[in-house]
Amino acid sequence: MSTLPRRPTYIAVVGGGSPPPRALELAEQVGRDLAKRGAGVVCGGLGGVMEAVCRGAKAEGGTTIGILPGNDPQEANPYVDVPICTGMGYARNVIVVKTASAVIAIDGAYGTLSEIGHALGDGIPVVGLETWQLSSNGVGDNGIINASDPADAVEKALAAARRRERLKQAAAH
Amino acid sequence: MSTLPRRPTYIAVVGGGSPPPRALELAEQVGRDLAKRGAGVVCGGLGGVMEAVCRGAKAEGGTTIGILPGNDPQEANPYVDVPICTGMGYARNVIVVKTASAVIAIDGAYGTLSEIGHALGDGIPVVGLETWQLSSNGVGDNGIINASDPADAVEKALAAARRRERLKQAAAH
Amino acid sequence: MSTLPRRPTYIAVVGGGSPPPRALELAEQVGRDLAKRGAGVVCGGLGGVMEAVCRGAKAEGGTTIGILPGNDPQEANPYVDVPICTGMGYARNVIVVKTASAVIAIDGAYGTLSEIGHALGDGIPVVGLETWQLSSNGVGDNGIINASDPADAVEKALAAARRRERLKQAAAH
Amino acid sequence: MSTLPRRPTYIAVVGGGSPPPRALELAEQVGRDLAKRGAGVVCGGLGGVMEAVCRGAKAEGGTTIGILPGNDPQEANPYVDVPICTGMGYARNVIVVKTASAVIAIDGAYGTLSEIGHALGDGIPVVGLETWQLSSNGVGDNGIINASDPADAVEKALAAARRRERLKQAAAH
Repeated sequence: MSTLPRRPTYIAVVGGGSPPPRALELAEQVGRDLAKRGAGVVCGGLGGVMEAVCRGAKAEGGTTIGILPGNDPQEANPYVDVPICTGMGYARNVIVVKTASAVIAIDGAYGTLSEIGHALGDGIPVVGLETWQLSSNGVGDNGIINASDPADAVEKALAAARRRERLKQAAAH
Repeated sequence: MSTLPRRPTYIAVVGGGSPPPRALELAEQVGRDLAKRGAGVVCGGLGGVMEAVCRGAKAEGGTTIGILPGNDPQEANPYVDVPICTGMGYARNVIVVKTASAVIAIDGAYGTLSEIGHALGDGIPVVGLETWQLSSNGVGDNGIINASDPADAVEKALAAARRRERLKQAAAH
Repeated sequence: MSTLPRRPTYIAVVGGGSPPPRALELAEQVGRDLAKRGAGVVCGGLGGVMEAVCRGAKAEGGTTIGILPGNDPQEANPYVDVPICTGMGYARNVIVVKTASAVIAIDGAYGTLSEIGHALGDGIPVVGLETWQLSSNGVGDNGIINASDPADAVEKALAAARRRERLKQAAAH
Repeated sequence: MSTLPRRPTYIAVVGGGSPPPRALELAEQVGRDLAKRGAGVVCGGLGGVMEAVCRGAKAEGGTTIGILPGNDPQEANPYVDVPICTGMGYARNVIVVKTASAVIAIDGAYGTLSEIGHALGDGIPVVGLETWQLSSNGVGDNGIINASDPADAVEKALAAARRRERLKQAAAH
């Protein structure tokens, strides 16, 4: 199928629906940077961080997928190109992270925490931008890759996604 | 958001992974006709009818979504633009039909039957093309709209999708 | 763990929430007969056929599992011993059939049709009692085992469940 | 239905499949204490913390539900009374917490983290026993109720479950 274009790398951007303004600015810039780098955005499709990252991506001509908890594509924010209706509530969080090659987590709602847990449990890299810090029995957990700003988050997510794809290809041969 | 393009109508095309050659021809033509009419295709993302409909759609420049049962976007057939990894096995059939405004069922595997049941149970119209016929306690069920050929299936699916969208808008006002 | 009792065989009983009175009588008798034979009942946990089969099973001291579409165990009918809250809507139909060794389908709602499709697609035997008849391209499909009355349905479901369990054990050795 | 016994309160016990021996001891004691208090156990049905809590519960005559990721009830540990086959992989974590009135988290695998996130996002109380500590942007999060030992965890989980059930009943009236 040499004439079909290669699919873009999809990066999941996860964060709450009602975050502080600062998180919305970070998310919009992450969306812009992902689109400039040719990566697609996958998210939960609703408002807050999800809408901000899609708005940023569309401003730079990117592609956006929204994995919705409900049954109605009209629930998607207006910057979602492809609304997927799961009808499964927050179980859809699993699909958001599995569809991506890496995850960028912004700010700290509990739904975001569930997505971080699902991604790390599945070996999908997670880059954190002003989000949860984890420790277990008093020892810090270094599963989340810390980023200092949106450009750094995008750079680290794409690098981690490439590393993971190379490892999967090597394992398949 | 007046500058954002309107999303296309998505039509789910459902059918088995190992159908007879006749079903593959029907599916490819359905894909071509949907793309010509500006509709997007959503399917289960794998082979057989799913691959044929995507191949037809891409030949006419359409958009294709594949809702995969597994965790690896590489499992999608090469004509899928947007691979969604659910990791949920055949529970993903529910998502295939919910994401669409109408369903076209081709040929007759049992997975297709589950998708027909989920769609009709949710009030999503189903158009059948050489697929299952249903009767209950000896009385024929007319839930499935019969189509005579791919062009007729696409015409009836788009008309049913428009009727449903108008009803939903009317109900929302 | 020689002192742990063997788990019962679970049989899924599927059917609509608003069926005709005749289906409720059939379902209650199926529940009674399953409990007398020592089998557990798994169902969708709500009303109609689901409530009738649980009422029958409890009248004979059986065990009943209700796989609910929503988040609230109080939605379960009063004859459900174990309410499972999925929050996944009708995607829970998949779990109802997968949890069982065989399925008895009574009467004919579309949700029941989706459960028949999921079960047959997974190789889980389905016994039909005044339910859907399937044909494909004009040829009758014999996937559903027909039963003449509740006692016959229970007998055939338990026999099919045992055959399937023997085949799985043989495959595992 | 005055003659039907009231259903027990179900408490989810979540923790990894390969934890240190200390976590297994804690889990087994939690299972014993829950059963002595008349509460049912719901868990992911596999090994490690899941098996230990079920073993403890059965030693005291309790009831145990295992929500499995796969399709085969034989994958459940031998102390599971009711194996539920979801076929949905780790998306089943959502069902584990939704089925319970409160959650006890032991030790710290990433799947456990996803369950903590899903529960807190849904307003289901979480009691932690030597598990994850969460902070967000440098500020500790107090969503998880800390317990000092198994008896304290069971006491706090049952108290939180009762509070939640009272609030739900008050909201329904």
